[in-house]
Amino acid sequence: MFAVEVRDHIMVAHSFKGDLFGPARRLHGATFVVDVAFFRTTLTSDNVVVDIGRAHEALKAILMPLNYRNLDELPQFRGQESTTEFLCKHVFDALAAVARTGGLGPGGDGIGKIRVTLHESHVARAWYEGAIA
Amino acid sequence: MFAVEVRDHIMVAHSFKGDLFGPARRLHGATFVVDVAFFRTTLTSDNVVVDIGRAHEALKAILMPLNYRNLDELPQFRGQESTTEFLCKHVFDALAAVARTGGLGPGGDGIGKIRVTLHESHVARAWYEGAIA
Amino acid sequence: MFAVEVRDHIMVAHSFKGDLFGPARRLHGATFVVDVAFFRTTLTSDNVVVDIGRAHEALKAILMPLNYRNLDELPQFRGQESTTEFLCKHVFDALAAVARTGGLGPGGDGIGKIRVTLHESHVARAWYEGAIA
Amino acid sequence: MFAVEVRDHIMVAHSFKGDLFGPARRLHGATFVVDVAFFRTTLTSDNVVVDIGRAHEALKAILMPLNYRNLDELPQFRGQESTTEFLCKHVFDALAAVARTGGLGPGGDGIGKIRVTLHESHVARAWYEGAIA
Amino acid sequence: MFAVEVRDHIMVAHSFKGDLFGPARRLHGATFVVDVAFFRTTLTSDNVVVDIGRAHEALKAILMPLNYRNLDELPQFRGQESTTEFLCKHVFDALAAVARTGGLGPGGDGIGKIRVTLHESHVARAWYEGAIA
Amino acid sequence: MFAVEVRDHIMVAHSFKGDLFGPARRLHGATFVVDVAFFRTTLTSDNVVVDIGRAHEALKAILMPLNYRNLDELPQFRGQESTTEFLCKHVFDALAAVARTGGLGPGGDGIGKIRVTLHESHVARAWYEGAIA
Repeated sequence: MFAVEVRDHIMVAHSFKGDLFGPARRLHGATFVVDVAFFRTTLTSDNVVVDIGRAHEALKAILMPLNYRNLDELPQFRGQESTTEFLCKHVFDALAAVARTGGLGPGGDGIGKIRVTLHESHVARAWYEGAIA
Repeated sequence: MFAVEVRDHIMVAHSFKGDLFGPARRLHGATFVVDVAFFRTTLTSDNVVVDIGRAHEALKAILMPLNYRNLDELPQFRGQESTTEFLCKHVFDALAAVARTGGLGPGGDGIGKIRVTLHESHVARAWYEGAIA
Repeated sequence: MFAVEVRDHIMVAHSFKGDLFGPARRLHGATFVVDVAFFRTTLTSDNVVVDIGRAHEALKAILMPLNYRNLDELPQFRGQESTTEFLCKHVFDALAAVARTGGLGPGGDGIGKIRVTLHESHVARAWYEGAIA
Repeated sequence: MFAVEVRDHIMVAHSFKGDLFGPARRLHGATFVVDVAFFRTTLTSDNVVVDIGRAHEALKAILMPLNYRNLDELPQFRGQESTTEFLCKHVFDALAAVARTGGLGPGGDGIGKIRVTLHESHVARAWYEGAIA
Repeated sequence: MFAVEVRDHIMVAHSFKGDLFGPARRLHGATFVVDVAFFRTTLTSDNVVVDIGRAHEALKAILMPLNYRNLDELPQFRGQESTTEFLCKHVFDALAAVARTGGLGPGGDGIGKIRVTLHESHVARAWYEGAIA
Repeated sequence: MFAVEVRDHIMVAHSFKGDLFGPARRLHGATFVVDVAFFRTTLTSDNVVVDIGRAHEALKAILMPLNYRNLDELPQFRGQESTTEFLCKHVFDALAAVARTGGLGPGGDGIGKIRVTLHESHVARAWYEGAIA
């Protein structure tokens, strides 16, 4: 199994509602350093997993509506706790849709799996990994 | 598959017995930076993999009897080479017991897998990954 | 010149007012990984720059009122752009006050300089370094 | 599943041919920080996954013919795009051959899987993971 | 003293001539992760050291003519060993010129010092630090 | 001012005596990742700060008598608390002696300053910086 992983980041505000979250129920924020790994069982005819330029652009386009935002005010997260693990799945779903509709270019249809990791500090991170095809 | 990973560390002395270990048969030591990843196929009703506060506490409680110790003198490691990979399994077993007995709080019973990584330097690390349920 | 540096972190929301800041004028947030370095020309009789336990506690106490907060609502930052570099100076001033009033314990009076670094992402950080004595 | 991972690096020149690669079709170069993970379901009688000294030596021997070279001139890469993901597989194949022929020493025959990761910058990396036995 | 540091990177080929360099006299390459720190004794009226957006753009513009290039073929490096430390000074000189001619925007004239660090691997890096004013 | 920094590491056991150290008075251990920076106001005729190969070798030779050792048993540390900051100075003194006696090769006599950093974990490090000439 081959993989290629690229990195970007966002800076957001948000808060949680559940008792579980203690002081994080107050409005606070986070830098999320975002790593996205694309998996493929074989390489394309160019010997790549994915066109890394397109992968970077796709990730940036997905992150842009979140960057420098208060997630509590975004309709797509209404009624949801916007935890790190939940946001991993949000980015995954958006990238999966891009991959399935040819948005990653030639060979992008061969991507079998994507993993999205969000690092929230030097001591905590979360990820979601799922099949595409 | 979702995952959340948290970090702590210990500073220990130990030595090895087997010929394989060369100069590491002498009493020496290590800083082990410990990453623990909890895996769950779905999120809890709070949109988390695990209560990260409880996860940190459980890890700290497991590491405390090892921290600032000479592992050669601890009864739980008698007759064992306390290699990095062996220590990964030791921490895994203790965390698995906590997870199985409800010590990780609501939703902790849904954790399907745990991975324990010990970084021993900037150029070497080991991990153990196993099922919980 | 000797130095010892310790690390902690905070997760905050804030926004900027000046035109300079573009999209960062919207309410957003950041994880700030905070490194504090203490400088001393000679070591204490215990061969340390500072009691590292006390240094960690002092840093934690200074960061607590900021952690999981919206900085826009804190009186101490009223009328100020709470940029990364400004926050470095805020933490520095608080630590300098602790150092000057004996709060770092025996030998803490010999600390000549402190540097506070805030990492805001994997590609940007700021610091402030100033004399204590 | 147990794993042990070791690190080394190479500094190489190369270029690509396909239109996909844009400016990277020009002769350029890269530092590849190389992580190799060895996987084993049980530990050896010495409580290790692999003799870490031998693993380091095997990796170094495989990297040496590439280090400080222009990959475009090496016969083993003729007619191939020497992408990061392709090079991962190249290192994997060489290490798998060592593992299968006993070159990793006692217990090396129990290694079930190897993963080779090449970090090409602070924002991009690739890996290949495959079975040995 | 305040500082702000930003990061970018380049991937280049080059070779050395002097006997000192041993195998690095062969055509090879490097990823240079480039950190640029701007120093200022006071903050601007916006509480910043420098407009971080302009700083990033200035750095990118300076690195572009080097990126994906064989440095041996660039006229600006003719007759020079393009060592990591030499390249630090090259980037410094270009940034100093931008700073001195107002290219860093309002407040950029107050920058007193710049430091350019090039990381060439996980075990080696170089930097050049010099006054601007 | 130019600088070049190289990295190595040691794994040692030790203990402290003073009340200040709390649980670290027990025999424990550490991985110290060691960074050594060499400073020079101008480059040599080869455009380097120091022959990086010789610098690495000098560092390795100085660390070898400490590596895989219990520092409590080494005569050179008798009666001393072998704190991280103290060990920085120990390595500095040894490297300074090498630099002063020509052991860093041609141009090594122009090194004006050395800084030795020991990272003891992901959250703590110390350094000593001093003049050579």
